[in-house]
Amino acid sequence: MGSHRGNFLIAQGGGPTAVINASLAGAVLEGMSLLHPTASMWGARAGIQGFLDQDFIDLRATGADLWKAIGETPAAALKSCRRKITAEDIDSITTICREKDIRYFFYIGGNDSMDTANKVALAAKNRGHEMFVAGIPKTIDNDLAETDFCPGYGSCARFIAQSTLDLGMDIRSLPTPVSIMEVIGRNAGWTAAAAMLAREGKEGAPHLIYVPEIPLSKDKFLKDIQEVHKREGWVVAVVSEGVCDEKGESLSSSAGEVALDGFGHKLPGDVASALANLVIRELGLRARSEKPGLIARASSHHVSDVDRGAAEAVGRFAVQSAIQGNSGFMASIRRTDNNPLVLSYEMAPLEKVAEVERFLPREYLNKEKNHIAESFRSYVEPLIGPPLRRYPRLVGC
Amino acid sequence: MGSHRGNFLIAQGGGPTAVINASLAGAVLEGMSLLHPTASMWGARAGIQGFLDQDFIDLRATGADLWKAIGETPAAALKSCRRKITAEDIDSITTICREKDIRYFFYIGGNDSMDTANKVALAAKNRGHEMFVAGIPKTIDNDLAETDFCPGYGSCARFIAQSTLDLGMDIRSLPTPVSIMEVIGRNAGWTAAAAMLAREGKEGAPHLIYVPEIPLSKDKFLKDIQEVHKREGWVVAVVSEGVCDEKGESLSSSAGEVALDGFGHKLPGDVASALANLVIRELGLRARSEKPGLIARASSHHVSDVDRGAAEAVGRFAVQSAIQGNSGFMASIRRTDNNPLVLSYEMAPLEKVAEVERFLPREYLNKEKNHIAESFRSYVEPLIGPPLRRYPRLVGC
Repeated sequence: MGSHRGNFLIAQGGGPTAVINASLAGAVLEGMSLLHPTASMWGARAGIQGFLDQDFIDLRATGADLWKAIGETPAAALKSCRRKITAEDIDSITTICREKDIRYFFYIGGNDSMDTANKVALAAKNRGHEMFVAGIPKTIDNDLAETDFCPGYGSCARFIAQSTLDLGMDIRSLPTPVSIMEVIGRNAGWTAAAAMLAREGKEGAPHLIYVPEIPLSKDKFLKDIQEVHKREGWVVAVVSEGVCDEKGESLSSSAGEVALDGFGHKLPGDVASALANLVIRELGLRARSEKPGLIARASSHHVSDVDRGAAEAVGRFAVQSAIQGNSGFMASIRRTDNNPLVLSYEMAPLEKVAEVERFLPREYLNKEKNHIAESFRSYVEPLIGPPLRRYPRLVGC
Repeated sequence: MGSHRGNFLIAQGGGPTAVINASLAGAVLEGMSLLHPTASMWGARAGIQGFLDQDFIDLRATGADLWKAIGETPAAALKSCRRKITAEDIDSITTICREKDIRYFFYIGGNDSMDTANKVALAAKNRGHEMFVAGIPKTIDNDLAETDFCPGYGSCARFIAQSTLDLGMDIRSLPTPVSIMEVIGRNAGWTAAAAMLAREGKEGAPHLIYVPEIPLSKDKFLKDIQEVHKREGWVVAVVSEGVCDEKGESLSSSAGEVALDGFGHKLPGDVASALANLVIRELGLRARSEKPGLIARASSHHVSDVDRGAAEAVGRFAVQSAIQGNSGFMASIRRTDNNPLVLSYEMAPLEKVAEVERFLPREYLNKEKNHIAESFRSYVEPLIGPPLRRYPRLVGC
């Protein structure tokens, strides 16, 4: 250790999570301890965009204590970007790596970022530039392949489950009997599914969960709401922002609400708001919507210690493995025991991860496909950390 | 003490807060300790509606320990209602009180509930039924007169301030530079104003705050967003759900988005969503919206201990004062010192509170009326409990 030549580069891509900076801090601290002290350590500001602009931050200029503090912040400390990488970009990246003598290249991100890391690893190899490239997983979507879970998911799951539980208490005590809560997660249903943890058995919120993997018709939705309302007298439904109808159209438009941009293109509507209005219009019930949006991934009050620990560990593991001479992998998580949870870390080939989306398996849906099967609990519960805050049954509700 | 004759009745009205049950538990525990052990203690299920239906809950059937636990739950433990009280209702209430020998009558609520309590107190007096009637204040809106603040406000303020701070971290690190966060509070701007606590000096989110007391035009809003974006590169704006344009129309409709119910009546739109779409359409910037909605008043993770303490204290004080022979008052809070905060409790005449709305004073607005003056901090900061969770400046943002 300490004798490795070449410089270190790390970047963050895509949407942040509540623990993405734990991965960053873990990787940086590991690099500081393992790399030769003369090796430069850089962060690319704003992901690959910043890398292409050679907008580099000297990571050594920030001390270990401050890195530890940064590891406990929400948001992406290096700033993020959304850029669809072109073949030309990959060429430029390889050229910059050679010029800057970058030998260790880490990209923290989701599917697109893993695809970028994969392409960078291949291009470096093809052009004969020896560089050790690793992806570090993060996404609240939990949709990366080849890993038990994605750091960031457990904390977002915790926020969603606790908020559903708290909201359920409120709605149950109100004369407004229907609330539709929209949660982030565009293509995969893992985040919405986590709301099932709010329930104890078949009791309480959420009564309904809709994930983007299952098309939802207006009629089916209204029938579900009406049935629950008749049976229970109140309804909390959790709906993924990405839920679509049978034609693949967002339910916000099929519920009759469309906003257009300056070019006449449809703007992404708020699904929950449109569905609440549908309930008012078609069922004559008082209904409302909540949409915590990005607060679900930024709230430091709902960070899962398990999630944060795993986030830091994948960062450290990626750097250790790269310095040991490995390349073209994503640091991935294996669950070796579930009770209590024991995790181990391994390398998954980037080409098996890049651009693959791992959807919520159908076996986790209930028969009617409007809720989550109890079997999902043993997957998600260990990831959210300590038990949710629960309350006694209220005397009048 | 202990020799007072007659029965005890308590109810909850309007929307819950995170600490309304602390008031209920305080009042019930105080009643249990001060009333004659043969006196019945009832809760009306679902507010005045339940009272009229004589749907009474035996409060003594629940032990003191469980009442303490209920005091730490969100939602309204007795269930709430929304019913505009008629003169006939008041007659029926007085008749029921006489028949049931109710001599202590407590109503926990906001403006409408205080109006109801006032009318009940007057009717009992006019009809010669000796009854001690007290209002117990609660509302996240903080818009009751004759009290320094309303229990429930401090916890909602804490949620909004911390969420604005966390959201600001996330948005600042993103390529989507604009987020509009909508907060509950229909007529008064106290809740939106609390977001100012997220800032340290002039740094960070929120850059703009819009309260319902000040009409907002589409053009002024777009000009503000454009200016902040030009100066800072990112914008977090907090907007009250009740913000209207100069004609008193909700900004969601004046921004061009109207949903209709089955009778062609406009449904309440989501202001933040409509404003985000306006920014996309008119300014060509990437924008999004968040709307935590009722989660802001139901989240037990953001309860302020100061707020909860005051909520319990007004409940206890109301019962003590009524049993001492006082009637027709609301338990109100006086701030006798601010640093550290010292509170005392007194009686405010219900007729000075009933149906009065206390708006955010204009002196708390900045000159441009798109933010809150620094002078507001010393009012609101002591009410939210411990300091907000703050983070180091992120290296790349």
